[in-house]
Amino acid sequence: MNARRTDLALEAHALFRAAQRDNAVDGLTLTERTRRGCAVTTVTVESETASRALGKPRGTYVTLDLRALSPEDPAYTERASLALRDELRALLGHAVDTALVVGLGNRAMTPDVIGPRAADHVPATRHLKSCAAFGALADVSVLTPGVLGTTGLEAAELVRGAVETVRPDLVVAVDALASQSLGRVCATVQLTDAGIVPGSGVGNHRRALTRETLGVPVLAVGVPTVVDAATLALDLLDEAGADLPDPAALRGQGSVMVTPRDIDARAEQLARIVGFGVGLALQPSLSLSELRALID
Amino acid sequence: MNARRTDLALEAHALFRAAQRDNAVDGLTLTERTRRGCAVTTVTVESETASRALGKPRGTYVTLDLRALSPEDPAYTERASLALRDELRALLGHAVDTALVVGLGNRAMTPDVIGPRAADHVPATRHLKSCAAFGALADVSVLTPGVLGTTGLEAAELVRGAVETVRPDLVVAVDALASQSLGRVCATVQLTDAGIVPGSGVGNHRRALTRETLGVPVLAVGVPTVVDAATLALDLLDEAGADLPDPAALRGQGSVMVTPRDIDARAEQLARIVGFGVGLALQPSLSLSELRALID
Amino acid sequence: MNARRTDLALEAHALFRAAQRDNAVDGLTLTERTRRGCAVTTVTVESETASRALGKPRGTYVTLDLRALSPEDPAYTERASLALRDELRALLGHAVDTALVVGLGNRAMTPDVIGPRAADHVPATRHLKSCAAFGALADVSVLTPGVLGTTGLEAAELVRGAVETVRPDLVVAVDALASQSLGRVCATVQLTDAGIVPGSGVGNHRRALTRETLGVPVLAVGVPTVVDAATLALDLLDEAGADLPDPAALRGQGSVMVTPRDIDARAEQLARIVGFGVGLALQPSLSLSELRALID
Amino acid sequence: MNARRTDLALEAHALFRAAQRDNAVDGLTLTERTRRGCAVTTVTVESETASRALGKPRGTYVTLDLRALSPEDPAYTERASLALRDELRALLGHAVDTALVVGLGNRAMTPDVIGPRAADHVPATRHLKSCAAFGALADVSVLTPGVLGTTGLEAAELVRGAVETVRPDLVVAVDALASQSLGRVCATVQLTDAGIVPGSGVGNHRRALTRETLGVPVLAVGVPTVVDAATLALDLLDEAGADLPDPAALRGQGSVMVTPRDIDARAEQLARIVGFGVGLALQPSLSLSELRALID
Repeated sequence: MNARRTDLALEAHALFRAAQRDNAVDGLTLTERTRRGCAVTTVTVESETASRALGKPRGTYVTLDLRALSPEDPAYTERASLALRDELRALLGHAVDTALVVGLGNRAMTPDVIGPRAADHVPATRHLKSCAAFGALADVSVLTPGVLGTTGLEAAELVRGAVETVRPDLVVAVDALASQSLGRVCATVQLTDAGIVPGSGVGNHRRALTRETLGVPVLAVGVPTVVDAATLALDLLDEAGADLPDPAALRGQGSVMVTPRDIDARAEQLARIVGFGVGLALQPSLSLSELRALID
Repeated sequence: MNARRTDLALEAHALFRAAQRDNAVDGLTLTERTRRGCAVTTVTVESETASRALGKPRGTYVTLDLRALSPEDPAYTERASLALRDELRALLGHAVDTALVVGLGNRAMTPDVIGPRAADHVPATRHLKSCAAFGALADVSVLTPGVLGTTGLEAAELVRGAVETVRPDLVVAVDALASQSLGRVCATVQLTDAGIVPGSGVGNHRRALTRETLGVPVLAVGVPTVVDAATLALDLLDEAGADLPDPAALRGQGSVMVTPRDIDARAEQLARIVGFGVGLALQPSLSLSELRALID
Repeated sequence: MNARRTDLALEAHALFRAAQRDNAVDGLTLTERTRRGCAVTTVTVESETASRALGKPRGTYVTLDLRALSPEDPAYTERASLALRDELRALLGHAVDTALVVGLGNRAMTPDVIGPRAADHVPATRHLKSCAAFGALADVSVLTPGVLGTTGLEAAELVRGAVETVRPDLVVAVDALASQSLGRVCATVQLTDAGIVPGSGVGNHRRALTRETLGVPVLAVGVPTVVDAATLALDLLDEAGADLPDPAALRGQGSVMVTPRDIDARAEQLARIVGFGVGLALQPSLSLSELRALID
Repeated sequence: MNARRTDLALEAHALFRAAQRDNAVDGLTLTERTRRGCAVTTVTVESETASRALGKPRGTYVTLDLRALSPEDPAYTERASLALRDELRALLGHAVDTALVVGLGNRAMTPDVIGPRAADHVPATRHLKSCAAFGALADVSVLTPGVLGTTGLEAAELVRGAVETVRPDLVVAVDALASQSLGRVCATVQLTDAGIVPGSGVGNHRRALTRETLGVPVLAVGVPTVVDAATLALDLLDEAGADLPDPAALRGQGSVMVTPRDIDARAEQLARIVGFGVGLALQPSLSLSELRALID
């Protein structure tokens, strides 16, 4: 049993490999390449065995690592947005006419703002359709459903209502994730066609946003913003080459999710990148500056 | 034709009376009383003639004037919340088991935050129903649907979806209104069973939140936060006893809605009062401090 | 006695002209020209007579009118910032080595955020002076002193302390102003070498930020964000060609400053323009994108 | 050499004890007691030897542990504020006529908002002194100097200017601290008469806020909000009874300060407690509800 918590298929794959000598699992593959200078890792989970091995539903999981770009570079946001746009288009495979973008998470909790703040940077166009000037745009709606604790409503319930209203070809759901590595926090983006379960990795059908529950394809875009304290400790030990203690013993004060001290600025930056990347992927006719002019 | 813009039935009634010598309109009544020291005016619109006269749908419109209370009084928020709770209960007539509270408006525009910020102060309880400790609570959900310009979705579309999900006995919709008087801004609350059309007084069936469009009773709670500049000028002239110019001529720079300079603090204060008043009306078993403990 | 309230020398001049048949006042001049397509009006107040006539201290008052530019233009912020930079440089006449930028006003009140938010967009460089890479930059400090009601300290007291610490060649003070015209709100910028009295047009030596009180030149940058309700009414009447009532009679509900309903977005936009314009005027070696890279 | 980072004298003392068999250090004492049910630990550092042993300047360090109180208790804020007020009064020993409260830190970084947000909850009264109604109040000013990176000014420079202006009997400086324990984050408050160096434990005379640099007594109030990742790992291992690796080896990704995922709500709550506790300690004639009425 693995004590390390992660929402990244990339990390789950590495943990599985480390635990298994015999790594020939049918239907599980990992490939690496680069996109605009950034490392891109694709994990495909195609069999039930592979799904159980990784604890992830079947699907394709693409991780874009932005660490090759420098956040101090004035063009960082643009470069990262374009790399994300390209990966999103590659995973989609074709243009969509109508999309619903969903920003999951709690605006009042900094490591959870990625979804809502990314949604703020995607221009809604559905209500502009009748304008001649915008005839070439895809029809995009944007929903930030909030969280159960303040609304009494599962995000999935509101998303289902919006799906019935706009009947999109695609739902794009943005959420914050847990990683096992501080280095990946606000520096990587995971894309997957496997959908998402808001607020947890635990399967809960009522809460899931998937093709099965919504009736349309769901593209999930996740950004790691938190690390489990015990997982962090184990990883620091690993790097230090130290002996690993019993993971269960670390669960004292460790069942706490932590986030870097400067998460505000980092989450804001990634939210813009994700919002712009999603917006550009959905609106092939727009440049980044045209997209931004639609938002401001 | 009346050039003064107002969303308050109370003001529409006064304008109508001022314009008409013969004020005997069937089905239109106005009564005044006090509640916890505050003036309460009830306008009932019961006939088609009365509806046309006031430009308001049929229904009961109750205006609670908080100006008898002093905002500097440390107990102001509590006193105003209790007065509002009492009026809401009187208008409802009975307790409800399940309610959906909707905070209409744009969080990014200060005079428009009343709806969303009031919703922030109503505790959602729907997800707590299974807890024994909360068995006695009404089942309340809270929705802040945002505005068309940033979501591409009419608020009414999202509300319809939420109504189908939670099947409430009642929808309470909170919104900002236009008054013709600066003195009423953030100092009065209008309650009505006639429903509401977000963002405008213009009838637009697709956008209306009414018993007809939602299939459940709708209680609208409105707080005036803006005044039309030309209406303001006419009112200042009236008070000064000056001759009134042709209203149409005032429409130059006057087709602008204005709001007091200190609207931030005043809207925040009224949002708390409305949120607490609505929360207390829906949860008869809770005191104000118990209600607040559910929110913080 | 003039009943209309304005902080703009341009408007005070027009009111004075309208009231006086004989407009030959020694030491009072008004000239008009354009800068990058924008109208620029310069009022100079050079005599004691002129100062009394306008109710303004002696000095040069430059008003830049941005209404020739379109806020919908994606390049609006850049164009307006460059026009403001050019006017600031022309008024300064020479480069400065060390400057203190002061953002006056209350962050918690939307029409008053211009000063603090503009200051947020001016990069502080004083602490970077020892870095080789930034050797060519002017030494800029940025202070947002808050308001008396929440600090117990006059802004001028804190500014004096900061002036003693950094010993600047120049203080640039940004503040919100009152105009008599809604059309000028967040659409014009007034620059003056006459200094500023935070929070009011009333002379109060202890509170003034002037060359006399601080010992260094003070360049005040003001943006109108509010209009007095009674002044607004009088102006609407003037436009309508109506008879004007006794101004004093309008002071009933009229002694209230109002602001447009959409002040949040407009103040934020002007704050960026002012911050960028001031930053560029103080750092002649930087382009706008280099300046922005220092802030983000 | 100790690899664990902490700003808490309590933790530094425990680390020193653990490292030393012979714990008889002259001038170093630790005593424990309770205050309103909360554990209070006092460390006194009275000799140069003790100061070197702990890496802390001489002084008295009082840690108030709020974990005996329940954050879910509706009276939590009040109880914690009163416990803090009592400890502050005990450390002060006498009432002060004039105080300057300084909220250190960066408002734009959640774990750093404790200082500025606590300052927001302390009512400034200096400007009210001339009102008869407030004759009995101490004369309190409140300063939030911001951070060097955005102002170009050391906080200490601005504080010195404010001290010269208001000539207080006491400076109270509130800041965020680093702890070695996640459990103490936003759950303990350290008070000390030894002053404070904003932004770091490293001695930097220009930046220090102490009786020596300011000329008046300085009471520092600190709340731990961050934990060093490597320190966290070592502590989790200690609790798990595991062998400890070479601390230096943990410094890979570990030289990062982390904070709990829900830091927004926790920091806001502690800021209120600290602001109220400081306000009540400075204004012995006010109850908590009277104090709050002065702020809202």
